[in-house]
Amino acid sequence: MNPGNPIIGIDIGGANTKIASLDRQITQLHYVPLWKDTRLPEIMKDVASKLTPYKVGVVMTGELADCFSDKEEGINFIMDTVDSVFPDVLYLNNKGTFIDRNGDIRSLAAANWMASALVAGKDKDCIFADVGSTTTDLIPVKHGQPLAGLTDFKRLGRHELLYRGILRTNIAAVIDRIGLDGTQYRISSELFAQTADVYLLLGNITYKDYTCDTADGAGKDIKDVEKRLARVVCADTTELNSIHIKKIAQQVYVQQRNELAGALKFLSSEHGIDRVVGAGLGEFLVRDASRHAGLTCTLISGIYGEAISKVFPAYAVACLVGDK
Amino acid sequence: MNPGNPIIGIDIGGANTKIASLDRQITQLHYVPLWKDTRLPEIMKDVASKLTPYKVGVVMTGELADCFSDKEEGINFIMDTVDSVFPDVLYLNNKGTFIDRNGDIRSLAAANWMASALVAGKDKDCIFADVGSTTTDLIPVKHGQPLAGLTDFKRLGRHELLYRGILRTNIAAVIDRIGLDGTQYRISSELFAQTADVYLLLGNITYKDYTCDTADGAGKDIKDVEKRLARVVCADTTELNSIHIKKIAQQVYVQQRNELAGALKFLSSEHGIDRVVGAGLGEFLVRDASRHAGLTCTLISGIYGEAISKVFPAYAVACLVGDK
Repeated sequence: MNPGNPIIGIDIGGANTKIASLDRQITQLHYVPLWKDTRLPEIMKDVASKLTPYKVGVVMTGELADCFSDKEEGINFIMDTVDSVFPDVLYLNNKGTFIDRNGDIRSLAAANWMASALVAGKDKDCIFADVGSTTTDLIPVKHGQPLAGLTDFKRLGRHELLYRGILRTNIAAVIDRIGLDGTQYRISSELFAQTADVYLLLGNITYKDYTCDTADGAGKDIKDVEKRLARVVCADTTELNSIHIKKIAQQVYVQQRNELAGALKFLSSEHGIDRVVGAGLGEFLVRDASRHAGLTCTLISGIYGEAISKVFPAYAVACLVGDK
Repeated sequence: MNPGNPIIGIDIGGANTKIASLDRQITQLHYVPLWKDTRLPEIMKDVASKLTPYKVGVVMTGELADCFSDKEEGINFIMDTVDSVFPDVLYLNNKGTFIDRNGDIRSLAAANWMASALVAGKDKDCIFADVGSTTTDLIPVKHGQPLAGLTDFKRLGRHELLYRGILRTNIAAVIDRIGLDGTQYRISSELFAQTADVYLLLGNITYKDYTCDTADGAGKDIKDVEKRLARVVCADTTELNSIHIKKIAQQVYVQQRNELAGALKFLSSEHGIDRVVGAGLGEFLVRDASRHAGLTCTLISGIYGEAISKVFPAYAVACLVGDK
């Protein structure tokens, strides 16, 4: 390949595959839910033929998708797919080292945060906070070293991984009760609505950002969104009006923000770091939660632009490949 | 139709359709998830031709399924389906009255508990508690009168409907943290595992009772169950052993039991009733929660047998049709 061709980074998640070039001219976000379709090979092929990259860096989290029997099966599937279309691929592991098939491939599991944190925390200590469609990564970085646990499981026990995002998260996982007209209501546990409905209704994301499927297969108009949110308390839009439904959305937002603020505060005091660096489609939540927690917050969008922020792990791994 | 033919009751839920005859010779449970298949007409046709009932009573909750734009659309679909194959159908509404298409059909929404409570509480004051695949109905009955709110929405605000069952409930809706080896772990919000996995592993239900689909489309062997439960904390079975995974299941059970005990205790003191009558596939949870709450508990299986307990709303509406 020609060194004049782009260096690209690819972040293969369970729901989304993100692509960015080192020169920031290319940013792509593909909704590819690994557990229900097999479009990943097709998309990788397309990317390879259109971008003809000089070098490729890859990070992943998609190996946890429940179409795979265990993580190793998932990692092998992803590596097979990528290696079959790109000639020269580097995989970043959870220690910040690039490895290939001969290395300990289990260390590749859920390491996309490592790329982001190495880049975001290069010059200053911070808690790197990436709120994506599905999860929230919180990575303390000190003296350029990411200090997070090495597996998703460990990070769940250290407030470094909150399995909540701003698109795909079932409302029932975020909140237990909704207060309306002075009564606290329990809620349904079905996937009747997701956080994308909340943040679209509240204006934090746009239709274009709502890249995942809807819970009921219906549309993304406000009327559709309201029907889904009403269903969370087993009601329909003849029983609840738009003001009620907005209150449901606001309470989900407050709960998610406060939960994030709590985790940031914990990590801040644990590591003696009071600066947060926010990234992801849910940057706004990092900003609001940092404020709520009394912490300073810088946003990746303010440094590199919004498009890069939304695919930051992909951009970060491209940077790390470029530095090599 | 011949009065010698059976009187049957049908309970059409979002996930399951239950059928019972007044003489208790017939009990059927069909897994018919309304939001993803259209087998209801076919099954109703089959029931009509095989059982050729003399009279039919119907209760429903399936109108909330998110394939329907609102509850009225759902109710109309269900009535169209049933009326097209049975000649003489009575629908029980949320006031305990039988109506037909000329009545206020919205009052048919989510009224299956009304049939059960009228029958279970005929002779004695009780809190009728039916733990099914998906939901838990708690209905205070005094002097033969069910005192619950008239809609699912109202009952969610009165501790009379807990949207948790023992098969289809996402673990992430039941519990927030799992303690393992002294650390509290946050959990994934994906539908990686459901309560059926928990209760199968703990031995509270059998393979035959696990009538719904698995979360990952894999099997129902213990190895499959363990993989799903490990995934709840983003781990696989190389990271967690069987003892760890059993601890996950036990904590979900304790949380669900305690939540039910809390609601029973609240309703008990609110209405001055200290007797619980339990029904459903999750009777064992009613028994355990009642004990935990210090309340007396009678089980429907002890009176009518296990098969009837699992389809109790269907049996109850058959009784009410028979009494007419």
